[in-house]
Amino acid sequence: MNPPHTAVIGALELPQPYLLFLGDTTEPGFAKTAFGLRDWSPDRCIGEYRLSADTVSTGLPAMTPAQAGANGARALVIGVANPGGVIPSHWRASLVEALAAGLDIVSGMHARLSDIPGLAEAAAQHGRRLIDVRVPPADIPVATGAKRTGKRLLTVGTDCALGKKYTALAIHRALVARGVDATFRATGQTGIMIAGGGLPMDAIVADFEAGAAEILSPDAADDHWDVIEGQGSLFHPAYAGVSLGLLHGSQPDIIIVCHEPGRDRVLGLPDFAVPSIEETIATNLMLGRRTNRAIRCGGVSLNTAALGESAAQDEIARVADRLGLPVADPLRGGAALDRLIDHSLA
Amino acid sequence: MNPPHTAVIGALELPQPYLLFLGDTTEPGFAKTAFGLRDWSPDRCIGEYRLSADTVSTGLPAMTPAQAGANGARALVIGVANPGGVIPSHWRASLVEALAAGLDIVSGMHARLSDIPGLAEAAAQHGRRLIDVRVPPADIPVATGAKRTGKRLLTVGTDCALGKKYTALAIHRALVARGVDATFRATGQTGIMIAGGGLPMDAIVADFEAGAAEILSPDAADDHWDVIEGQGSLFHPAYAGVSLGLLHGSQPDIIIVCHEPGRDRVLGLPDFAVPSIEETIATNLMLGRRTNRAIRCGGVSLNTAALGESAAQDEIARVADRLGLPVADPLRGGAALDRLIDHSLA
Repeated sequence: MNPPHTAVIGALELPQPYLLFLGDTTEPGFAKTAFGLRDWSPDRCIGEYRLSADTVSTGLPAMTPAQAGANGARALVIGVANPGGVIPSHWRASLVEALAAGLDIVSGMHARLSDIPGLAEAAAQHGRRLIDVRVPPADIPVATGAKRTGKRLLTVGTDCALGKKYTALAIHRALVARGVDATFRATGQTGIMIAGGGLPMDAIVADFEAGAAEILSPDAADDHWDVIEGQGSLFHPAYAGVSLGLLHGSQPDIIIVCHEPGRDRVLGLPDFAVPSIEETIATNLMLGRRTNRAIRCGGVSLNTAALGESAAQDEIARVADRLGLPVADPLRGGAALDRLIDHSLA
Repeated sequence: MNPPHTAVIGALELPQPYLLFLGDTTEPGFAKTAFGLRDWSPDRCIGEYRLSADTVSTGLPAMTPAQAGANGARALVIGVANPGGVIPSHWRASLVEALAAGLDIVSGMHARLSDIPGLAEAAAQHGRRLIDVRVPPADIPVATGAKRTGKRLLTVGTDCALGKKYTALAIHRALVARGVDATFRATGQTGIMIAGGGLPMDAIVADFEAGAAEILSPDAADDHWDVIEGQGSLFHPAYAGVSLGLLHGSQPDIIIVCHEPGRDRVLGLPDFAVPSIEETIATNLMLGRRTNRAIRCGGVSLNTAALGESAAQDEIARVADRLGLPVADPLRGGAALDRLIDHSLA
């Protein structure tokens, strides 16, 4: 299923469909972007391009850039992230080949495409674009706090990197399956590539953070839902400001609190305890009320990827019982997810 | 009195002393930067440079750039801010004259100095620098949350633009007068020019906001106080993320809450009420506790500039009575400020 993408004024817009570039990456953990695109945007991914037989594969049809172009591809997406975010020099010829085949290049890596020697010149020669999704567009306004029409759901977390993006994607998918008019709004590089647009909230200049969140989910029909990918956590010593700007600018009607059972220390900062789900709900509601008095918690998303099915269901039931709120692992779906959606839409 | 400036790794460092450039500005309200420098850094300002007889004056000796250079000036500071932040083209010859006289140019305006036609070439020709204090240095790290040595005081506010900078400057001045080892840490362009260094917190990319605050007030002696200029407000729909990143990264031991009596709507956003002082204290302490469990409120700073002396003292007494905390207008000084300092150092 394909999350429909509605144009956002001022937000990034990516050319689609994609050819997924895997380089010669043999470690599946480095190909999360490609796997995410395959899983969440399959009809925007028409093939993959690998440089060697032992490169990881998404299972999509193998194509050269020329073949992909002939099949309608508009962009080659770099679907792998190396340690350090650099693009190895021996990939350059393949990227130039894609430009020559009429494809733009899309990257979410830290290194900018235009910093690769010769690539900007090749793009200009072939009339193609180099698109770094980590680079926000210019002219993002300062937030006004003015109430916008339509409904909004924001995923928030007890910590970073525990499922806010996949929770938003799964809730969006479930809403669309119910016939609800809904749009997934991406705030990080992988989400932006999946959605085909969005804004990299961690790369916005601080004064414009809430303003970026405001233009990301513009006025919409009264029964339309924007499902917004959360970032960071209000309790993270480095990223809380990002989370607060996103919370204020998003004006969510509903927050879904994401947590990973067993995660008791902040990722990478073992001196900091992960807050309780209860404290996370209370703090987000208290601060979020500033721009939307009607904000409430729609439920809790547990990332139970590390648990077996039975242990996962036990944990979901235990937390639901403790909180008196719907709790689900959205990637497992089922009746628990239905209850969380029911409560959010109520 | 001159706030002593301690070098900060990664923060801006400005060449001093200054020649204050007033252009041909006749409206005193546009010369706040020059007046602030005269009032808070008099021994770093050796003269002023005006283009016409009816230009506003700081009262400092009139000097050409050549005369200022001969008297030891190292930089010409643009001490006026026009509406729109642009630098009129008829100032260009004066700026080139300063470069030729061996002065760097320092600007806090929105327009970048290097965007003025010909100025970058003139700077290169004379071996001088163009310094935009709104442009943060590169390589600001992500925050770690690690506790730093020394003591820190942060001014926070019920809103923007109501005295956080001048409160910090006045408290710093009072600490130094008591013989306390203290440094004023600037976070906005005027403060940076006064201090001769600092970081423009509103111009930092959001992911690095708390990290910037961490390097702004580095490890120090146990009895040293950093007095940190606050920015924005946790309740401002556009800037709360800036305030939270600064709060977390600063790890303040003491907050001083700044308020302007009578300000009941957020500046420029009349749909938003200004929070009470009590709510501002509680929210800052709750969120600030994340990086410093010992955080407490040292008192309240009231901006009583619009009130006469008697009305100001009445208001200060009334708020102090209501809160049970020291309350002062630091720019009026007196016993009230002494009590606020006593309580902060206790």
